[in-house]
Amino acid sequence: MKIIVAKTAGFCFGVKRAIDIAFQIAQEKRKDVYTLGPIIHNPQVVKKLRKKGIAPIDSIDAKKNIKALIIRTHGIPLEISQKILSESCEVIDTTCPFVKKAQYYAKLLNEEGYQVVILGEKNHPEVQSLMSYAGGDVVVVNGEMPLPKLKRKVGIVVQTTQPLESLKKVLSRTLELAKEIKVYNTICNSTALRLNETARIAGKVDVMVVVGGKNSANTTQLTRLCESLGVPTYHIETASEIRKAWIQNAKKIGITAGASTPAWIITDVEKRMRDIGG
Amino acid sequence: MKIIVAKTAGFCFGVKRAIDIAFQIAQEKRKDVYTLGPIIHNPQVVKKLRKKGIAPIDSIDAKKNIKALIIRTHGIPLEISQKILSESCEVIDTTCPFVKKAQYYAKLLNEEGYQVVILGEKNHPEVQSLMSYAGGDVVVVNGEMPLPKLKRKVGIVVQTTQPLESLKKVLSRTLELAKEIKVYNTICNSTALRLNETARIAGKVDVMVVVGGKNSANTTQLTRLCESLGVPTYHIETASEIRKAWIQNAKKIGITAGASTPAWIITDVEKRMRDIGG
Repeated sequence: MKIIVAKTAGFCFGVKRAIDIAFQIAQEKRKDVYTLGPIIHNPQVVKKLRKKGIAPIDSIDAKKNIKALIIRTHGIPLEISQKILSESCEVIDTTCPFVKKAQYYAKLLNEEGYQVVILGEKNHPEVQSLMSYAGGDVVVVNGEMPLPKLKRKVGIVVQTTQPLESLKKVLSRTLELAKEIKVYNTICNSTALRLNETARIAGKVDVMVVVGGKNSANTTQLTRLCESLGVPTYHIETASEIRKAWIQNAKKIGITAGASTPAWIITDVEKRMRDIGG
Repeated sequence: MKIIVAKTAGFCFGVKRAIDIAFQIAQEKRKDVYTLGPIIHNPQVVKKLRKKGIAPIDSIDAKKNIKALIIRTHGIPLEISQKILSESCEVIDTTCPFVKKAQYYAKLLNEEGYQVVILGEKNHPEVQSLMSYAGGDVVVVNGEMPLPKLKRKVGIVVQTTQPLESLKKVLSRTLELAKEIKVYNTICNSTALRLNETARIAGKVDVMVVVGGKNSANTTQLTRLCESLGVPTYHIETASEIRKAWIQNAKKIGITAGASTPAWIITDVEKRMRDIGG
């Protein structure tokens, strides 16, 4: 049995940066430090951080005595940033710098008179944050749905973890509706590399195992990609979920993981597979 | 035998405007009035205008005594505009207003720091004119060729008679290379309508006849479109070219024509077909 682990599996630059900052603060053993929402979309990492004393809260009203608040990698809506600034707590911003850039472009496009179109998942916190910068005419679309009526001038920004293929589709459709289009391709490079490597591996294995939070959009996207290529695919959060039946007849197995999956979970999964597979 | 003539066949707004201006001047019977290059890409119209006393010249150096110079619908390069302005002759500019707009956007994109990509036919006078406004980094591409290496910021303008499908292709490819893209879709509406109607007619006839200058890019494009849809297609300039063998077994015949084809030639073609077809 051969196991191929994607080189691009696991923490991207932005997630690594956020987790380093958060665990550094945890080490200082300060009291009343919280993350606003889960810092990344990986329940195991969030649990580990909670054990170190930093728990997520849903809103700043949820706790009375906040000393410091950590802003998650996905960013937060502008209104909430402003509300936090009016509080007396310290703010530690781990928003991914690439998400910050997308926020900036959404704001710029709106100021330049473009109707902003965001390619992404409407309920994802990153998109929620981008929307708050994009002005009142903002429209959120995914790569599959038809576009609504658009204005003459349309500006496009993209959730950093979307596939380029979706942007191509949306842009082609926008050309039917708008006369002037400005696109900031804010898809981050590590997303593109991870999707490409995953597709390459999925093309030559009998089974794909995708590791990462069930709530992680980019991990789910990897799963969908592998499935669309016709290879049996299993999305797991931890090694304990692996079933012998999945892999016992496989000669080659591929492992990939989302940007929010820590290396230790990926190592565990590989190890467990070798234990089961013999 | 049923003949369907495309409603969108023939003179577009810009060509009609230019021809009206030129023949108006011809009527004034002034001496030493010339067009710089053929005013439109239709040899029959150019011949008619020559008979009325207005002939095309290749360059302003070609004639010594120019009293007035008519600028063709396709526009001219900026350097030549400047050279003409330094001469003492009168300038009558019949550049299509939509081409003027594309020139303006090419200039604007260059000033805003974009590397300008022009979608069009490199040797076409409209594209030659656009290039002169687009700065030193300008690249000309068509819908089929791979793109060269591009800068981070790319601005796209389009020859007014290109099909939207080509713009979609070029834009998809540009997304692989540039991070910020600004597109001015300068394809004129009458081009899009003519291509759409032609495709619709070609889909339901036995033979298509495309009428217009052999040197007309948009007429040639209509021919290619019909051929690509698998219908026997003939590109002619005048009624005299029609052969009985083309249409004798046809139950339905479609006629379309480029933006530079005058109504009288289209009428002649239809009449000649009815004469032959019985």
